[in-house]
Amino acid sequence: MTTAQQRVEERLTEEVLASFARTPDPRLKELVEALTRHLHAFIRETRLTEAEWTRAIEFLTAVGHITDDRRQEFILLSDVLGASMQTIAVNNEAYGNATEATVFGPFFVEESPLVGLGGDIAGGASGTPCWVEGTVRDTAGDPVPGARIEVWEADEDGFYDVQYADSRVAGRGHLFSGEDGSFSFWCTTPTPYPIPHDGPVGALLDAVGRSPVRAAHLHFMVSAQDFRTLVTHIFVEGDPQLEIGDSVFGVKESLVKRFEEQPPASATPDGRALGDKPWARSRFDVVLAPAQ
Amino acid sequence: MTTAQQRVEERLTEEVLASFARTPDPRLKELVEALTRHLHAFIRETRLTEAEWTRAIEFLTAVGHITDDRRQEFILLSDVLGASMQTIAVNNEAYGNATEATVFGPFFVEESPLVGLGGDIAGGASGTPCWVEGTVRDTAGDPVPGARIEVWEADEDGFYDVQYADSRVAGRGHLFSGEDGSFSFWCTTPTPYPIPHDGPVGALLDAVGRSPVRAAHLHFMVSAQDFRTLVTHIFVEGDPQLEIGDSVFGVKESLVKRFEEQPPASATPDGRALGDKPWARSRFDVVLAPAQ
Repeated sequence: MTTAQQRVEERLTEEVLASFARTPDPRLKELVEALTRHLHAFIRETRLTEAEWTRAIEFLTAVGHITDDRRQEFILLSDVLGASMQTIAVNNEAYGNATEATVFGPFFVEESPLVGLGGDIAGGASGTPCWVEGTVRDTAGDPVPGARIEVWEADEDGFYDVQYADSRVAGRGHLFSGEDGSFSFWCTTPTPYPIPHDGPVGALLDAVGRSPVRAAHLHFMVSAQDFRTLVTHIFVEGDPQLEIGDSVFGVKESLVKRFEEQPPASATPDGRALGDKPWARSRFDVVLAPAQ
Repeated sequence: MTTAQQRVEERLTEEVLASFARTPDPRLKELVEALTRHLHAFIRETRLTEAEWTRAIEFLTAVGHITDDRRQEFILLSDVLGASMQTIAVNNEAYGNATEATVFGPFFVEESPLVGLGGDIAGGASGTPCWVEGTVRDTAGDPVPGARIEVWEADEDGFYDVQYADSRVAGRGHLFSGEDGSFSFWCTTPTPYPIPHDGPVGALLDAVGRSPVRAAHLHFMVSAQDFRTLVTHIFVEGDPQLEIGDSVFGVKESLVKRFEEQPPASATPDGRALGDKPWARSRFDVVLAPAQ
């Protein structure tokens, strides 16, 4: 590339940056300027062809057209490019021994059923019954009583309740930690499932040889006054998808937990009668960072 | 930011990059890797908040939803961020004294009417009649006979024919350069007009204090065997929008031409009778780069 050509390209970027000089909101100015710099650098560095640019416009158009009230393909795109997790990362700086955050995902629903300590959030969702227990503590190790613990998950077939056409409420609920910070509940053992992959994002994953499957996980959102709200998952030790790779990069080693399978008809922690069904148990001790 | 935090963010980017390792097409691999690096750098550098990420998803969704067969908001977005012009720039490296390229725009239509040398491409479009003449030459100054010259433009009200609900064909046509490389045609003097700005891209321009108006221009596409196809405009010297700024960054100094207003009833170059109408004339000498 000649110096003259380089100058043409640099001057164009400068001209676009200058066009934002009168942006009233300084934060918006910072964002559009940074976007322009990176977008232009991407085009210059890859020497993007006009045909590739056209393909990109068509791809984004398809992402827009499949998106509706029940399907958010732009979030999927952000997820599979790791942009969602990077946003989580910059907004949840590691704080001492506080539990790590991961993606929120599109399946949280407000006003989930309240269950007591030891209650069942499965609500009839298919899967192996699973007992989860743990504590909520601060970074000094002191218990946090009354923390709100939201839990949600897909059923054994890989679907959240809201993905069904009926209006079932299943695989979700909330509870509060006890005086000693402890909590426990029944749910179902999480299983791997694919993100919706019949659209343009699925086609992209195909083209780059990637699996759309998410590692099995159980969603948590834990909040308490004076603490940073924790949005996270726990993952299942031994899930083969952990090796293959989680399609949205949500896995952190500290969040992989043992889910111990229990023999059918063995005694349950709270005496719940499961007949001859097998069940599982896991433990998740939560450490909340202080609010900023 | 702590070193540990920096490492978390860097490792995430590396993990996403590694996920593309099995992409069969090496060019696609290069593109998704570069996209990932720049997207993550943008998020890390701006410390994008989760609320801003949500706003970005909503913005892209709105861009997708307004886009249809007659409206391409993603192209507008690319245009106002200078991404379209930067793509043009990297694909049309300066070549000696060859004429500079600029944006193609969304209003070109295949199979425009053929007119002879000195013919009228206005087809009834409103505006001041304008005579344009010039030559097509190679970079050594030798004439290029038989070059196909496509010309298209908005009418005096700022609309291209395809923006009207009827099926008019106006303000577009093609002709071929003569044996000595010369060409001439009648059209209308270009006037400034806004890009469609009633959608999310218009709202973005508003928020950053920018005008949606394009500097007045006449589109050209000039092609001939063994030459690089030239897609460009000529702009109108003295157009105040040249100072304010072209909303899609298409202007290059070498493409700004004099459009000389002629007194009503003065003699036209080809004897065309315009009654007491004023008219204008301009000159555009085209130099084609060799095909690569």
